Amino acid sequence: MTVQTRVTVDETTMANAIRVLTMDAVQAANSGHPGAPMGLADVATVLFNRFLTVDPKDHTWPDRDRFVMSAGHGSMLVYAINHLLGYDDMDADQLRNFRQMGARTAGHPEYGHAKGIETTTGPLGQGISTAVGMALAERMHNARFGDDLVDHWTYVLAGDGCLMEGISHEAIDLAGHLGLGRLIVFWDDNKITIDGATDLSTSMDQRARFEAAGWHVQAVDGHNPDAIARTIEKARADLRPSLIACRTTIGKGAPNKEGSHKVHGAPLGAEEIEAARAALNWPHAPFEVPREVKSAWGGIAARGANARADWTARKKASDKRDVFEATLSAPDEAALDACINAYKAKLSADQPKVATRKASEMALEVINGALPNSVGGSADLTGSNLTRTSQMRSVTRDDYSGDYIHYGIREHAMAAAMNGIALHGGFFTYGGTFLAFADYCRPSIRLSALMGVPVSYVMTHDSIGLGEDGPTHQPVETIASLRAMPNLTVFRPCDAVETAEAWQLAATSKATPTLHCLSRQNLPVLRTRHSDSNLTAKGAYVLRAPEGERDVTLIATGSEVEIAMEAADLLANEGINAAVVSAPSFELFAQQPTEYRAAVRGSVPRVGVEAAIRQGWELFLERNDGFVGMTGFGASAPADELYRHFNITAGAVAASAKRLINKG
Amino acid sequence: MTVQTRVTVDETTMANAIRVLTMDAVQAANSGHPGAPMGLADVATVLFNRFLTVDPKDHTWPDRDRFVMSAGHGSMLVYAINHLLGYDDMDADQLRNFRQMGARTAGHPEYGHAKGIETTTGPLGQGISTAVGMALAERMHNARFGDDLVDHWTYVLAGDGCLMEGISHEAIDLAGHLGLGRLIVFWDDNKITIDGATDLSTSMDQRARFEAAGWHVQAVDGHNPDAIARTIEKARADLRPSLIACRTTIGKGAPNKEGSHKVHGAPLGAEEIEAARAALNWPHAPFEVPREVKSAWGGIAARGANARADWTARKKASDKRDVFEATLSAPDEAALDACINAYKAKLSADQPKVATRKASEMALEVINGALPNSVGGSADLTGSNLTRTSQMRSVTRDDYSGDYIHYGIREHAMAAAMNGIALHGGFFTYGGTFLAFADYCRPSIRLSALMGVPVSYVMTHDSIGLGEDGPTHQPVETIASLRAMPNLTVFRPCDAVETAEAWQLAATSKATPTLHCLSRQNLPVLRTRHSDSNLTAKGAYVLRAPEGERDVTLIATGSEVEIAMEAADLLANEGINAAVVSAPSFELFAQQPTEYRAAVRGSVPRVGVEAAIRQGWELFLERNDGFVGMTGFGASAPADELYRHFNITAGAVAASAKRLINKG
Repeated sequence: MTVQTRVTVDETTMANAIRVLTMDAVQAANSGHPGAPMGLADVATVLFNRFLTVDPKDHTWPDRDRFVMSAGHGSMLVYAINHLLGYDDMDADQLRNFRQMGARTAGHPEYGHAKGIETTTGPLGQGISTAVGMALAERMHNARFGDDLVDHWTYVLAGDGCLMEGISHEAIDLAGHLGLGRLIVFWDDNKITIDGATDLSTSMDQRARFEAAGWHVQAVDGHNPDAIARTIEKARADLRPSLIACRTTIGKGAPNKEGSHKVHGAPLGAEEIEAARAALNWPHAPFEVPREVKSAWGGIAARGANARADWTARKKASDKRDVFEATLSAPDEAALDACINAYKAKLSADQPKVATRKASEMALEVINGALPNSVGGSADLTGSNLTRTSQMRSVTRDDYSGDYIHYGIREHAMAAAMNGIALHGGFFTYGGTFLAFADYCRPSIRLSALMGVPVSYVMTHDSIGLGEDGPTHQPVETIASLRAMPNLTVFRPCDAVETAEAWQLAATSKATPTLHCLSRQNLPVLRTRHSDSNLTAKGAYVLRAPEGERDVTLIATGSEVEIAMEAADLLANEGINAAVVSAPSFELFAQQPTEYRAAVRGSVPRVGVEAAIRQGWELFLERNDGFVGMTGFGASAPADELYRHFNITAGAVAASAKRLINKG
Repeated sequence: MTVQTRVTVDETTMANAIRVLTMDAVQAANSGHPGAPMGLADVATVLFNRFLTVDPKDHTWPDRDRFVMSAGHGSMLVYAINHLLGYDDMDADQLRNFRQMGARTAGHPEYGHAKGIETTTGPLGQGISTAVGMALAERMHNARFGDDLVDHWTYVLAGDGCLMEGISHEAIDLAGHLGLGRLIVFWDDNKITIDGATDLSTSMDQRARFEAAGWHVQAVDGHNPDAIARTIEKARADLRPSLIACRTTIGKGAPNKEGSHKVHGAPLGAEEIEAARAALNWPHAPFEVPREVKSAWGGIAARGANARADWTARKKASDKRDVFEATLSAPDEAALDACINAYKAKLSADQPKVATRKASEMALEVINGALPNSVGGSADLTGSNLTRTSQMRSVTRDDYSGDYIHYGIREHAMAAAMNGIALHGGFFTYGGTFLAFADYCRPSIRLSALMGVPVSYVMTHDSIGLGEDGPTHQPVETIASLRAMPNLTVFRPCDAVETAEAWQLAATSKATPTLHCLSRQNLPVLRTRHSDSNLTAKGAYVLRAPEGERDVTLIATGSEVEIAMEAADLLANEGINAAVVSAPSFELFAQQPTEYRAAVRGSVPRVGVEAAIRQGWELFLERNDGFVGMTGFGASAPADELYRHFNITAGAVAASAKRLINKG
């Protein structure tokens, strides 16, 4: 890779373009954060000018370097740079309309809103942790396709907030452990947070802390271009992930306000902007960039275009070309369908009574066998989540060709890294923990959903059915809280067949993350008649139609479908016709046509059954319908006893049904 | 404080009692985690025998040392110790019924289930972080009442999982920064996690990491009693918080299985237990403890009883006695009511149009002025959350007499520390962040709810009304996800009066945490007629009754109540009688009598209005009722534009109402 210094204008002038565009855009919006972009302008300029390789003409080029603005409130840094680089969707009008309705220049960088935004940031600590996933994916893809096709860097700008957040601990430990030397993090060491000086709230020796995590650590004057360049060179030469502590002045360039928490999150004001223009010797009108500055930044883009052309030629010559491209494309659905359908048919015939977590492992055997690029993992619950299939080998710092990641006891970094792996491209990725600990990674799950990244969460031990571990480990409100999240598909399959169908949907999801709620306890196969069609895709369907006209409809999910089936038997003994609806996904059911939904719900009374709270069940139930489930936290005891204690039994369901149809 | 070595039997024998009780209880339950208690038995024995001061006859004695088993899966360590110490609620039958329905010996230690359990643990990292709050509360209480009344230690046993979790980073940075020298953490350095050896997933140099956070760090052989005692002495002598890395063998005492991940979470089996009995020279039957071992442990209890007697004498002699006890008691509600009512009357008269976050600050001025023991804080958003009132001074490592905590950008540790402060006793505590970042501290909020700890969360910027920061910062599903949580009262007040009422309820809550969703944008006072009664306590109430019979009921929360009021005006212009219901707390409404709820909901069509998703609104709405709110993530733009864009306007509410009553 050619790395050269461009000299049309000096880098300080190039950086001042970022500063001025930032202060003008924030002023125009009368909202935003000028401090970080102005403080980091020199670091970013040197990074882009001498090292970072992107081609604004192809923002999806797989071998581009990844740039993550983890301090997402400094979004104007990204927009200013992308404007200066000539991305065709980032003209001056976008900057003028910073933070306005419909503009690509959202308050925080939003993945998918504009080219050159590699991930959504803003919630602190997410960027650096997502970048760990990107850097890991780069090495894993490299292990499969070599330096000719995969050979790039992941650069992160992070602030004090990112490094104070807990997720950063999980992420840097993981990165250090896996030896992700292609990851370089610049810490904006400006000694300022929103409340004031950092010494109000922290005494952490960040450099020592990163060293403890196995990182290469340097410090540099963040306003000295040549010194910055030297540290980046050293960082690239070291085999460990690198932290570069950049001593900066927040709001650098604002002569009266720089260095204070007052420039963090408020416009500078017309007077200070005028003073800054004078101090920076920048006489140009707002959003006007002189030709020679544009040309200097344009040189970076030209270097990127050349690099991409070289890469394209190498790819054309590579015999791994087709496999490489397959990893970056949607899976071959026809092939996958064939595997899954054969597997489903066998399940319906063999009827294995297994926990859905075990059924998930069995389905993953099929999926991982069929997909070219599946990568699994668990937050130290491999033997409980059953996420590791027989084909899988561990990823280690010495061998990235494996496909199973020991994330450690780090649910939050796992979820963020999964986002990063998916955003990097090349892999279908899933990871597991206990469902109750969805709370530990919820901020990253929310970003999966907001970005539309189709990762898949494997969340086992999904109810009081986990038994003795007790209420800290028993989800009660968790499923409702996940169903509340927009653009997340939650599955709670009732048996091995539905589990397979859920995985079929997860593996082919385009822009929606999926989350599987899986039982610890064994469940019989209820889908005993094979059908090639994926019934789980409907969200809910009639699993058992009564012989005569329906008297009542029992609607259940997951481990409680078995209970509903038993209740239907009890009712049948009393001459009551109960339909049983299995509802593995509320989100998918909500997307069905009105007529279908009405037919499934039926017009007779309903009883919902789920070992969780009722919130969210209004999708199926009317106010006067029955519900058999939980109303508070669980308890510690064997699972069977808990079901009896909380009265989630076939008898209770039948009794509720009879009350509703006035036969109780 | 007297510290002495007891010599009736040696400490290894005392420790073996823990080991044997553990393996027998886990075997009886056929479920549980023998590894940690057996590995940590020596450390715990030395700690209790030579240092820790508790009186089993008064488990609420304020000056007792606090013991936190952060590795909560090792709950049998706690139960075995409390049994040996002679707590009257922990007889051998409790151990025999480990993890069974109704036993106090739950799978993980549950606060309130048995005496001597200082906090609920199990979700990893929570114990150590909650302990930071306890140790901070001790110093803050000490700063107010001196060594005579407050002079104790907080001891924590933590495992690898606790230290890998992100929250531990936030907690140890906070503890180091605040110089909490009364906090001593023992790290069970056994090189084993569930997946296998720790080197599968981490390369962290834990000792260097704690040093980077400003801790005093030592290492010791965790099976050498005298060496353990020497490190504890040194830890107590140092002014910094202390980490003691205890090199232990997991499952120590099980001759064939110790040192392997197989003893982590499964019974040893009858054969291995027999071998362990032989190896430990422990011929006694299960749950039988020889007299001399009981007597040795009983000596610890006797030392504690003496210490408590001394303390009681000192308290009797103290002129601060009454104030001290006031901080430990429920607030004087009559006095608080008088202040709040005077304040509410003034609000209804003056009608200040302020954001509810500002109204919260104003209410806190009253509350903090009235309570003797209010402690506030924010996760680095003080100026946004408006959590710091004029009376408050910052807590620093040099002066613990303050009452405002700069938690830094650490939402998770803040929430856990708040739990710890509340559990310690002596303070009413609240802390703030943005509502969207409730996700960052959700596991600790869940523990507040599960334990019934009445801390109060101040969560501002509660909807798209925050404007330009965009969807990463805009709660949409957050309120529903919090309402889903059992035993958490969520408030979303519509104006300054309701905000004051919510704080009145929060300050007097006994066993339920509270959470305030507060607006960034200004809102008019809608409660213009003063009433001494707290209408927010009803959860929802008719704010505006129409002149004639109701045609429609508009039900709204927070910033959308203003919109509902405007919609009622629009409808009145067309001769339609709309009642407006303000619903500041769904949980409190759900607790009202059926008749009251029916009267508020009315029998005519309803329109719900909330700038959030509909999930949870079934409390008020029927399937065919209207809802004006959000269906997906927000966007970045000024707040007014967002409300128009997402069609959350008076016009939209009126239109929905008209459609429902067939006048649209």
